[in-house]
Amino acid sequence: MTIRYADRMEGVKPSAIRQLLQYGADPSIISFGGGYPDSSLFPARELQDIFAELLCGPGEKSLQYTHSTGMPKLREQIAARMTTDGVATEQDNVLILQGSQQGLDLAARLLINPGDLVATEAPTFLGALIAFNPCQPEYLAIPMDKDGMMTEVLEQQLQAGRQIKLLYTVPDFHNPTGITLSLERRRHLIQLANQYDFIILEDSPYREVRYQGEKVATLKSMDSEGRVIYFGSFSKILAPGLRLGWSVASQEITEKLGLLKLAADTQCSTLNMAAVSLYLERHDIDAHIQVIKARYLAKKETMMSVLESEFPAGIRYTNPHGGLFTWLEFPESFDSEKFMLEYAVPQARVAWVPGATFFPTQQRKNFARFSYSTHSEEKIIQGMSALAGLLKKHL
Amino acid sequence: MTIRYADRMEGVKPSAIRQLLQYGADPSIISFGGGYPDSSLFPARELQDIFAELLCGPGEKSLQYTHSTGMPKLREQIAARMTTDGVATEQDNVLILQGSQQGLDLAARLLINPGDLVATEAPTFLGALIAFNPCQPEYLAIPMDKDGMMTEVLEQQLQAGRQIKLLYTVPDFHNPTGITLSLERRRHLIQLANQYDFIILEDSPYREVRYQGEKVATLKSMDSEGRVIYFGSFSKILAPGLRLGWSVASQEITEKLGLLKLAADTQCSTLNMAAVSLYLERHDIDAHIQVIKARYLAKKETMMSVLESEFPAGIRYTNPHGGLFTWLEFPESFDSEKFMLEYAVPQARVAWVPGATFFPTQQRKNFARFSYSTHSEEKIIQGMSALAGLLKKHL
Repeated sequence: MTIRYADRMEGVKPSAIRQLLQYGADPSIISFGGGYPDSSLFPARELQDIFAELLCGPGEKSLQYTHSTGMPKLREQIAARMTTDGVATEQDNVLILQGSQQGLDLAARLLINPGDLVATEAPTFLGALIAFNPCQPEYLAIPMDKDGMMTEVLEQQLQAGRQIKLLYTVPDFHNPTGITLSLERRRHLIQLANQYDFIILEDSPYREVRYQGEKVATLKSMDSEGRVIYFGSFSKILAPGLRLGWSVASQEITEKLGLLKLAADTQCSTLNMAAVSLYLERHDIDAHIQVIKARYLAKKETMMSVLESEFPAGIRYTNPHGGLFTWLEFPESFDSEKFMLEYAVPQARVAWVPGATFFPTQQRKNFARFSYSTHSEEKIIQGMSALAGLLKKHL
Repeated sequence: MTIRYADRMEGVKPSAIRQLLQYGADPSIISFGGGYPDSSLFPARELQDIFAELLCGPGEKSLQYTHSTGMPKLREQIAARMTTDGVATEQDNVLILQGSQQGLDLAARLLINPGDLVATEAPTFLGALIAFNPCQPEYLAIPMDKDGMMTEVLEQQLQAGRQIKLLYTVPDFHNPTGITLSLERRRHLIQLANQYDFIILEDSPYREVRYQGEKVATLKSMDSEGRVIYFGSFSKILAPGLRLGWSVASQEITEKLGLLKLAADTQCSTLNMAAVSLYLERHDIDAHIQVIKARYLAKKETMMSVLESEFPAGIRYTNPHGGLFTWLEFPESFDSEKFMLEYAVPQARVAWVPGATFFPTQQRKNFARFSYSTHSEEKIIQGMSALAGLLKKHL
């Protein structure tokens, strides 16, 4: 039989990088492809005690259904953390999500009609494109430089009459480039959103993993009109396997996102919400984040040192102040996927994510995303040095 | 500012019963409204040991990201259980879901274009309507009798030219009525789906909680053309706070649902999937289900005995062989919501879910859903007797 799928499935295709992910599971290959956090940093021991306590007794509070918007205590704790970060937030502004990925899906459904224009950085987070595609938007790709999305290019497009419904940005340690949007550009972006009437999705899962430089105010903190929906995540500061993130938005938007959340999956795991809430109560998560930062800084510096000392000239790379990724730019004619499949994997046993897939519109082949989060410094040196040797032969 | 929401938000409204749910939290009221399982039946002690074991060590396997389609071992275990239940199932036919509610949302997105006709029982599960509404379907409401959805009425509609894209059914211990679809009707339904080319969503979260009578073959087991998507859930046999359910469908459909799952929330909680998988490996879940069944049977019998001996004539009710609900039919002119708010809550301190909200099209006011799952037999007798006394005065 032939199934008549809904029209929105036209945009729902297997990702081009799916087959590349197999390299992550092959122990003979050093893959810099995954966007995974380092699992040795997960507070498993502390969580073990917390789960033991939560599962002591009949489980009424931890195994039963709870509010679809999330456990009230956890919403309150997140509101307090957001307030400390400069965003005056009440519990009613917070929705607990199945990871911030769910926020992208719900926000797309809240806002996007087929054909609506969504602006994103080029390149942008692939998961966002995957979340938006079923709503059948058009994309306006805004280029980036070292200060993030080039808001002057966005302004030109708006002045030329392009009507944007939604702008998606990863302002802190952007995925895939590692770049942070400058304060000046953030102000400009908010001004443009107010002037041209669009909504901003501020996706910032890496924000708390800043290991160098001073933090830059969130877009949400500059939002006087309720135009910004902020997404945060416990995936990089606690553990992704708990699947917990959150949104911060106006009460009106939060209520509507909550209705979509109820429709989508009833609620997040009661047990996992209770566990994170208890973790925040019992432990100093900021001290834990300091440990995470120190590890990632060391790993990043290791990768930077090989890039600087061993890589051939003509390859540019970003030096991120937080997060998990650096972004390599090869000479214009270089196809990073082809090189990886033909040479790097078979000869150097090294893999990464080719950059083309991160571009919402015109895909460019001479980029690559490298993550330094999961491997030891030894492995980083081993893999990057092997790759450097191979590149020297070919470039 | 005024936000321009997507058109699909027209159908996303707060549920009419939301305010009634407050009664469930008021200890002075005996609420038969919630569809919650009895939390004293959750295997908290066993889960405590399992979580302790999973969180022993660095958490690579239980706290890290995993496959978006779900932990392979758990998919395999579910496939084996489904096979035992008469549906030949491979791991590739199983998708792990954030509760079966997520399956309804993903299936709607897979199949429904605005204006497509979705057939449901009348009444039907409110959560399904909530999941389908954002896809903007039209509904064809098929009445029920003691054998479930009246498939001959469905056939008349199909013969008259109504083109159904999708049929949604809860064949086992239907929510809200408690009714089970007969074997003959199941065969008829499959025959109609094949003849008139529509997809069936078989939502069966209560199937394993049958405490009387013989089980009836699933629609999925009769599906020779890959037209049935089956949804199961751990919410009623383990605990809803884990948020784990599953779908069983053709490989083609499972793959597409998996792409939507990835877009929606990346994956279910690794930790919770690992815990349920280990529970299934270590413990005899069927023995645990026997305990659940015995409790619910005792509670149901208690509620039936009060309905039979104390309720005034002219009130009809179903006597379910499984699940959590009975469905009361009052005389035609009786408004069950009005009576509850004006008399039952203030005078008898008893609440339920008025039936009107369960009808996808023409709402009928003289019905009510009563759940016997959460209260003790003493509370059931106390609440139902108080209500019986009040009804005798008013009817």
